[in-house]
Amino acid sequence: MSGARRSRTLSRPFTMRRGGVLPSVTLAYECWGELTPARDNAVLLFTGLSPSAHAASSDADPTPGWWEEMVGPGRALDTARHHVICLNSLGSCFGSTGPASPDATGVGRWGPRFPVLSIEDIAGVAHALLDELGITRVRAVVGSSLGGFSALAYCLRFPEAVEAAVLVSSATRSSPFAIAIRSLQRELIRRDPAFLDGDYAPGAGPLAGMRMARKLGVVSYRSPREWDQRFGRERIAAPEAAGEGGFGPQFAVEAYLQAHADRFVGGFDANCYLQISRAMDLFDAAEHGPDGTLEAAFARLRLRAALVVGVETDLLFPVAQQAELARLLTHPDRRVEFVRLDCLQGHDSFLIESARFTAAIGPFLAGL
Amino acid sequence: MSGARRSRTLSRPFTMRRGGVLPSVTLAYECWGELTPARDNAVLLFTGLSPSAHAASSDADPTPGWWEEMVGPGRALDTARHHVICLNSLGSCFGSTGPASPDATGVGRWGPRFPVLSIEDIAGVAHALLDELGITRVRAVVGSSLGGFSALAYCLRFPEAVEAAVLVSSATRSSPFAIAIRSLQRELIRRDPAFLDGDYAPGAGPLAGMRMARKLGVVSYRSPREWDQRFGRERIAAPEAAGEGGFGPQFAVEAYLQAHADRFVGGFDANCYLQISRAMDLFDAAEHGPDGTLEAAFARLRLRAALVVGVETDLLFPVAQQAELARLLTHPDRRVEFVRLDCLQGHDSFLIESARFTAAIGPFLAGL
Repeated sequence: MSGARRSRTLSRPFTMRRGGVLPSVTLAYECWGELTPARDNAVLLFTGLSPSAHAASSDADPTPGWWEEMVGPGRALDTARHHVICLNSLGSCFGSTGPASPDATGVGRWGPRFPVLSIEDIAGVAHALLDELGITRVRAVVGSSLGGFSALAYCLRFPEAVEAAVLVSSATRSSPFAIAIRSLQRELIRRDPAFLDGDYAPGAGPLAGMRMARKLGVVSYRSPREWDQRFGRERIAAPEAAGEGGFGPQFAVEAYLQAHADRFVGGFDANCYLQISRAMDLFDAAEHGPDGTLEAAFARLRLRAALVVGVETDLLFPVAQQAELARLLTHPDRRVEFVRLDCLQGHDSFLIESARFTAAIGPFLAGL
Repeated sequence: MSGARRSRTLSRPFTMRRGGVLPSVTLAYECWGELTPARDNAVLLFTGLSPSAHAASSDADPTPGWWEEMVGPGRALDTARHHVICLNSLGSCFGSTGPASPDATGVGRWGPRFPVLSIEDIAGVAHALLDELGITRVRAVVGSSLGGFSALAYCLRFPEAVEAAVLVSSATRSSPFAIAIRSLQRELIRRDPAFLDGDYAPGAGPLAGMRMARKLGVVSYRSPREWDQRFGRERIAAPEAAGEGGFGPQFAVEAYLQAHADRFVGGFDANCYLQISRAMDLFDAAEHGPDGTLEAAFARLRLRAALVVGVETDLLFPVAQQAELARLLTHPDRRVEFVRLDCLQGHDSFLIESARFTAAIGPFLAGL
């Protein structure tokens, strides 16, 4: 565990949106920057599918975080001005309650018996945590990808509790293409014989399925144009040695996928992955509109400002989805900015092109 | 077997480009339209990865073919004017020699011992067949996707034997994105325990792996924009009944992938699939240039005319690859046309949007 990680068990049970109750919810989070005495400078940061709460380094934990270049004094999420709070999402496995946690009896793990997770639950426990920390309103919610879903759900469920939102490479809901990719990933995991219907031993489980799912994920997270420039037709050294009946990796892009998969597998619990993945498919902001429309849902918002950032090469959350977000957020009493970036790295760009995302997000947050 | 299917065993053994010899090569093919006495009106049609030689119906076989709307009297490949010949590719499993065929001893099947297949081998046996049929020069080679690779390889290897080429949704070589997708598909098949290193019983084999590979294929063959319009967030009836621990299909797009996979699996031999898939990754037109460049390779061509067709929404063979083909084909002594279509159906558009492909290809072939 990170030396900077804080942990809090909520004082009340939590009722899940699609049924079921978590008798006990523990949340792992990290904070950077001082909270003002008025408790009015909090910035709540939601993560993508796989990261922990460790968004950035600090004295207590000098290891680089998943958004290291974006969080710190003078950075886009400027900790000289804001009190940044990043949570490990409900349903994940880096200190927050999820399928890998002890179940209601405390004897076994939730495993496949964890209630169906919704994005609104991720937002709901975050709100409960902030309430217990005495923070009733945040200056901004910020999230990329799944984190953007969580941030939007937070604004929809608790409209009075948010002043501004920063939604990066996200959407109002998933496209059928994204659902198809994630459905395939889940099937790869579930059909691995080692999945054992979700009752694998802790640390074991469907490693082969997770590896294949991760490879497919990387295909969807990057962009063909990036790979044209980065790999082209480059071969790996000694492809013959790869064996596998002549079907082992021969191209640099194949070795790249393999390396990504090797790094990921073993670190993320399969049941957690399945739950968060399905929650992304199920999320639909329109459910928050009394008449089931996105327009009615967005009419609930009380945001004073919103920033939407998208990337032209994103396959999974195509830029048309961010354009839709910006259109729906437009309101006479709200400052709305929409930034389209022509980064090459597709959906993952926000993890890589720090300078360009800083230029988009930094001034917006500074102007609040 | 189709009543229209012809079969011919070549009179000589065939030496494969990357090593190995096939002592006996049988090719399945179908023909439509009369061959002129001068034998100068042949149009040679190469297929994509999975089709048989049955491109269109005829009196002998009235079942619709894979390019039914494109081949026939008055159609784009006008059989009132041309003698159209379509072959089942070498390495496939619909009557032509491939891994599912009897091996050199005639006792067993080639299976995983089939020599490494190259696109140039597909072109090479086609040329040998036409030679035995007394056709020394074709009016045109036509191919889509893999078929475009085969057609281009035919032009590069036998420049004097072709007057014109029609290359549809194809390229000079595969992009790293396409290689990544196909590498994943092959891994899904090879890691299925039923694969047995390729020595599964005829008709059995890695059906689960083939099903997953097909689903991933369909994701890459269509386009996100098409699915936005076609499926959106549509659910299937009675998703609860799907079971599978709550992870069964819930969205229409998931049921669509499942239906596609069910139709495909069992009909295509896994070893054949692996060979053709890898051949697509390995093909590189630049290998035909004395100095290893595409420019030098294309300088070999003696085509009088060429048509390149691409689709804006193609993920697997993006339209920039067809633009590159058209640029490389440009020559003062050659009529070159490049048609960009904004069809929605991605790489598969040529199988669906017959009217638009007819408008592109029909006049070109009629003008030869």
